[in-house]
Amino acid sequence: MSFSPLIRQLIDALRILPGVGQKTAQRMALQMLERDRSGALRLAHALNEAMERVGHCKRCRTLCEEELCPQCADPNRDDSLLCVVQAPMDVFAVDQTGFRGRYFVLKGHLSPLDGLGPEAIGVPELLARIAEGAFSEVILATNPTVEGEATAHYIAQLLIPKGLSVSRIAHGVPLGGELDLVDGGTLAHAFNGRKAITL
Amino acid sequence: MSFSPLIRQLIDALRILPGVGQKTAQRMALQMLERDRSGALRLAHALNEAMERVGHCKRCRTLCEEELCPQCADPNRDDSLLCVVQAPMDVFAVDQTGFRGRYFVLKGHLSPLDGLGPEAIGVPELLARIAEGAFSEVILATNPTVEGEATAHYIAQLLIPKGLSVSRIAHGVPLGGELDLVDGGTLAHAFNGRKAITL
Repeated sequence: MSFSPLIRQLIDALRILPGVGQKTAQRMALQMLERDRSGALRLAHALNEAMERVGHCKRCRTLCEEELCPQCADPNRDDSLLCVVQAPMDVFAVDQTGFRGRYFVLKGHLSPLDGLGPEAIGVPELLARIAEGAFSEVILATNPTVEGEATAHYIAQLLIPKGLSVSRIAHGVPLGGELDLVDGGTLAHAFNGRKAITL
Repeated sequence: MSFSPLIRQLIDALRILPGVGQKTAQRMALQMLERDRSGALRLAHALNEAMERVGHCKRCRTLCEEELCPQCADPNRDDSLLCVVQAPMDVFAVDQTGFRGRYFVLKGHLSPLDGLGPEAIGVPELLARIAEGAFSEVILATNPTVEGEATAHYIAQLLIPKGLSVSRIAHGVPLGGELDLVDGGTLAHAFNGRKAITL
């Protein structure tokens, strides 16, 4: 049995979505066709609009359709703090913590084996952004992976000689869960980074 | 923090997909914007095409853009068998078992409390389809839920007096898994429907 050509085309197209396999795509396609055609047309319109008009903020390089993203355009943020992240999604994650400084979005992490050096991920643009700003502290919030650590380390080496205060987000045990489920590397970081309790 | 308006619009639109919540929609939107804009534009095109052109097969009422769906148009199927299902997705599921008869798709199940009587789910059209065909057996493959059973029972009551052979798909333990995880009702059906083993 086969679906009709247009339905098959829709199922195939839905599979570009992350985490969507054949079966999920089938369910999505048929459910939209049966129950929510106007919603699906709205989705098609939103996709077209976003793909054609969303570019990158010219200051922090996150995704947005204006010249400046909402974070860069906001006059009420702390201009002395710069948070460097790997991807636009991370801006959202960090902002939810209540951080109200500025951002800079790298294009991923350094990966020499894949030919991704400092230029490819936007380090020169980061240096230019820092040169034109008046930051007192740069917080490196790349991912806590080997590549993310290496990227943070590389950038720190460039910034510290300029007299900037450079920090890295803390490693330790995440909130919730149980200690025996935490991996050894994380637990070692949590011990090394322990803090005195003051009453 | 907020995403820019077009990204927010895309995230909201993605949430019409079944099983997609806020976080998944964010990931989908940003991943498409960063990595696969041409795929996203193809998806928008496929959505538009499908929503505007896919209708229902005039014979079996499944979803398709032609007058007849691939199953109804196929001349090599058994015209003496009719399988009645609740939804277009079920046609696909049954066809994967190797069934090669004809189909009829109801619009869901009877639900008197919601005002869904025989007319609303397409029973008159089913009777007309049976009258114009030459079926020797009608297989009722509605869902194994209370409503699906009631719908099958109702249809059987209409068809048996017409001299048709009417059957219901078997209830029993599904393949794989363990017996103690199977619910009591299913196990009772499996015992009642037990079959003699012949060597």
